[in-house]
Amino acid sequence: MSAAIKNLDSRPPKPFSLPNFLASRTAAINRALDRFLPAATAKPATVHRAMRYSLFAGGKRIRPALCLAAASACGGDETDALPLACAVECVHTYSLVHDDLPAMDDDDYRRGKLTNHKVFGEGIAVLAGDALLTQAFEIAARCQGWPRYSHQALILELARAAGSLQLIAGQVADLEGEGKRISARQLRYIHERKTSALLCCSVRLGGMSANCTPTQLKALTNFGYSVGLAFQVIDDILDVTQTSAQLGKTAGKDSKAQKATYPSILGLERSRKIARQLTQRAFDSLKSFKGRAVALGALAEFLLGRDR
Amino acid sequence: MSAAIKNLDSRPPKPFSLPNFLASRTAAINRALDRFLPAATAKPATVHRAMRYSLFAGGKRIRPALCLAAASACGGDETDALPLACAVECVHTYSLVHDDLPAMDDDDYRRGKLTNHKVFGEGIAVLAGDALLTQAFEIAARCQGWPRYSHQALILELARAAGSLQLIAGQVADLEGEGKRISARQLRYIHERKTSALLCCSVRLGGMSANCTPTQLKALTNFGYSVGLAFQVIDDILDVTQTSAQLGKTAGKDSKAQKATYPSILGLERSRKIARQLTQRAFDSLKSFKGRAVALGALAEFLLGRDR
Repeated sequence: MSAAIKNLDSRPPKPFSLPNFLASRTAAINRALDRFLPAATAKPATVHRAMRYSLFAGGKRIRPALCLAAASACGGDETDALPLACAVECVHTYSLVHDDLPAMDDDDYRRGKLTNHKVFGEGIAVLAGDALLTQAFEIAARCQGWPRYSHQALILELARAAGSLQLIAGQVADLEGEGKRISARQLRYIHERKTSALLCCSVRLGGMSANCTPTQLKALTNFGYSVGLAFQVIDDILDVTQTSAQLGKTAGKDSKAQKATYPSILGLERSRKIARQLTQRAFDSLKSFKGRAVALGALAEFLLGRDR
Repeated sequence: MSAAIKNLDSRPPKPFSLPNFLASRTAAINRALDRFLPAATAKPATVHRAMRYSLFAGGKRIRPALCLAAASACGGDETDALPLACAVECVHTYSLVHDDLPAMDDDDYRRGKLTNHKVFGEGIAVLAGDALLTQAFEIAARCQGWPRYSHQALILELARAAGSLQLIAGQVADLEGEGKRISARQLRYIHERKTSALLCCSVRLGGMSANCTPTQLKALTNFGYSVGLAFQVIDDILDVTQTSAQLGKTAGKDSKAQKATYPSILGLERSRKIARQLTQRAFDSLKSFKGRAVALGALAEFLLGRDR
């Protein structure tokens, strides 16, 4: 290879821009979700409109973006991670639709729009959530398997993170903790399951789709756990400090529902400190990836600094 | 091989007994489900107790029994079909738990026991249903794949039968049809999706777990479709002709909910005739299996003759 070509190949990459990364990945994820889901006109149209209403309600696509960034950090092709990224977003959206139901958090607004049951009625909202959860596994089944990470392993990863010992466990404990005095430890149990489990799963699935090494998977697990927990602590903080208009959802609903939060148990300043520490721990987990985890690091920084 | 040994080997098998078949398979399925599910004491205990409450509420295990019988008809080992059989039963149970919710059919009794939300409350019933659906895919992922039927193909089969174009489509159309005059054709659309899809999927998954030939799969599909539709037509008939005590669930609830049924649209006698015709078509589909589909045939006969 001539020096000229080598120089050309090793020209410095464009400086990383998180807004550009998020915009391009969100567009790719939205296109893929649109392709994977039955059309809004598919019979029965009500449930397909309801599924798409919540799936395309302006979510930040944090989890799928983390999944793609993790694949890239491990030297993989983001296209291989795309079905898994979309599957995780379907699981996340179903959990929001069911969480908002009157029998659960009873919320009227989500991302600045009426919640699913407010538009389509409770029966259809339950079914649209069920359909999104089922769709997640249909999409995940399209993923690329590897000798180290078989289809079985990838489906199991998703099912466990979404199951009764993780995501659903968090929601149950959250529901049962309402109006009760709970300890900081119990609150961490809830947050780890309700938020951290699926976020961590997104990152792990991204790595697995890139056939990552066991060492890389361990680093991604630490990263995903820390970012996931930080994300929820910040959610608690924003619920106290921001208005409904700023959040696009009902502010102050945790204290209204007599739900324990990090600020209510540990105070605002200590909660902020914990969020910063968790984010630092997330950054530390990325060291072994050297320069390849720029997007993952930028996403973590963005999640800590967000105001909605 | 000597004539004496050959005679010994070709001694007539014990006559097939459906009660024995059902008793042994139900016991095997119950043991497997108990093994696959988190313990009732696993944290958070409420949701695990709720999952097990409905899963072990005395269901007839029709779908998993059909799955095992189909595996056997194709010369397979029933053990290979067991995870898929259990996965289908989890999907079936989740659909009942959500169907019974106040926002849907609003039913207080199921199989002679209080419905899930009557015992655990609506929030936990929604979550227990979600957990059973998720558990189904975790269990299905443990199945044995084949070159002809990969893990992907098996998971896709289950996800499609349970998804928004099949099982959930049936429930949506059922919900939307309440109190409206619908045609016999629309009613068949509902029954095909609400009942036949998952029953047909059970039989197909059984065949696929036995690495069946494409011809066998086609025969099993015809069988599953016909038995599934017949099963629902008979359910409609029993709702009119039996008492709540006989059924173990609220009788006459379809007419009370102003739901169209086969008897209400076509009359009782014509409905009975359709059920018999469908069962005959199911029997005809089994001809190519020669003697090996005894259990499948006996199950179809049992489903037509049942009185609850």
